[in-house]
Amino acid sequence: MRKKLKILVTNDDGIDAPGLKYLWEALVDIAELYIIAPSSEKSGVGLGITIRDPILIQPVSWEKDTKAWKVTGTPADCVRMGLSVILKSPPDLVVSGINRGSNSGRNVLYSGTVGGVIEGILRNVPGIAFSCVDFVNPDYKKALHLIHPLVNHVIENPLPHGTFLNVNFPDTQEIRGIKLARQGRGYWIEDPDHRIHPEGHSYFWHGGKWNEHDEHEESDVHLLKQGFAAAVPIQVSELTDHKLYQERKAHFDTLFSYNP
Amino acid sequence: MRKKLKILVTNDDGIDAPGLKYLWEALVDIAELYIIAPSSEKSGVGLGITIRDPILIQPVSWEKDTKAWKVTGTPADCVRMGLSVILKSPPDLVVSGINRGSNSGRNVLYSGTVGGVIEGILRNVPGIAFSCVDFVNPDYKKALHLIHPLVNHVIENPLPHGTFLNVNFPDTQEIRGIKLARQGRGYWIEDPDHRIHPEGHSYFWHGGKWNEHDEHEESDVHLLKQGFAAAVPIQVSELTDHKLYQERKAHFDTLFSYNP
Repeated sequence: MRKKLKILVTNDDGIDAPGLKYLWEALVDIAELYIIAPSSEKSGVGLGITIRDPILIQPVSWEKDTKAWKVTGTPADCVRMGLSVILKSPPDLVVSGINRGSNSGRNVLYSGTVGGVIEGILRNVPGIAFSCVDFVNPDYKKALHLIHPLVNHVIENPLPHGTFLNVNFPDTQEIRGIKLARQGRGYWIEDPDHRIHPEGHSYFWHGGKWNEHDEHEESDVHLLKQGFAAAVPIQVSELTDHKLYQERKAHFDTLFSYNP
Repeated sequence: MRKKLKILVTNDDGIDAPGLKYLWEALVDIAELYIIAPSSEKSGVGLGITIRDPILIQPVSWEKDTKAWKVTGTPADCVRMGLSVILKSPPDLVVSGINRGSNSGRNVLYSGTVGGVIEGILRNVPGIAFSCVDFVNPDYKKALHLIHPLVNHVIENPLPHGTFLNVNFPDTQEIRGIKLARQGRGYWIEDPDHRIHPEGHSYFWHGGKWNEHDEHEESDVHLLKQGFAAAVPIQVSELTDHKLYQERKAHFDTLFSYNP
């Protein structure tokens, strides 16, 4: 029999977010869970880490004796503190979410949910990020039965170092299954909302309107619209544009060889 | 004659950082510069954007009539506000830096300096990130003569959509030239410094010690140690692990096809 899995659970909507509770519920019976989540919402922080503020770690009570902590930082801070300070040995997996709102298409690098998983990846701990496309009234429950089999699949079929799964659940009533997908091109584009403060000065809020692109049929954005959950294998350990590197290296190095 | 370049200049060390002034100095005579930088230091924020706080934009005075603004947000916020609110037409290029400290190896996605450039890339504005390896006492001056030719090169030999140059300058006395490089594997690993607050509770600071890896001779980390500036073409528009996708797609989709 396989040793019980040890899983670090984080998110970017914060320790009190319903999506975190549902992710715990989906996995509590099959794994030893350690919840380490931001003490307040950290949406949109990407892989950001907290350098100029002190970081506090406080235990919080959770159901079924699950150990849980809140951290005054980002999801990446949570995973970093988990791996270095809180946990005595590395977990088998980092899972993050379930995020309220889509992290499909090109939004991946903005997402704190994904940032927590990337932090694990850079330290050779595999990970899966979970998000729910429906932002207004997310129905996390309908996705719960997909999480355990997906986690099992990743444990039994390890992803290469540097690659994680970015999973989004569709906003349809029923989920037709999970498809392995390619990253789509759509993203939330700026549409800053200009307001006037009572004192008279201007300020802005980032708005969010979806920037539609022609999406490939294998893209997550397209598949989500068809009612499938989409799992994109995202690679972050080596971002070099190798094609460009090969094509231009010789000429470039000659051009900029000032002191040969 | 080529039309005068229009360049958006940002950084993550903040509007008052010396590195920003040096980057301006390197380009002021060849381009129309628009400085849009964070009102305070934003190191380590990656591609993070500010969603839960209002964003203020304030003009600041600068030398030689250069237009400049400070923004209460991250470098990505600065570029986003630049492209949507501040500038009447898109710039030809986003440059970011000169950062105090290395953004080589696997630190790329943590870097706010790089985050500002990625924000441009996702909106199809090309970009170059500049960082100086020496954190303690950076000598930006020795790198200034390399910036103008490199900007010219990128304008005359456009990079593919989705790719930017991540440039680090070495901490050696003289720079032996610039080499096109591959992303190295080293990074700043956690070494959290545990302190006790006067009131008795614990808190932590992220420390930073360099995690050495065997580095390929073509990696930025290796070349920097040899005294070269290193320019890594980084690709961020499509992060799918295509090899894994091709290998596993058929099997995966069959496994998770619940409602065919």
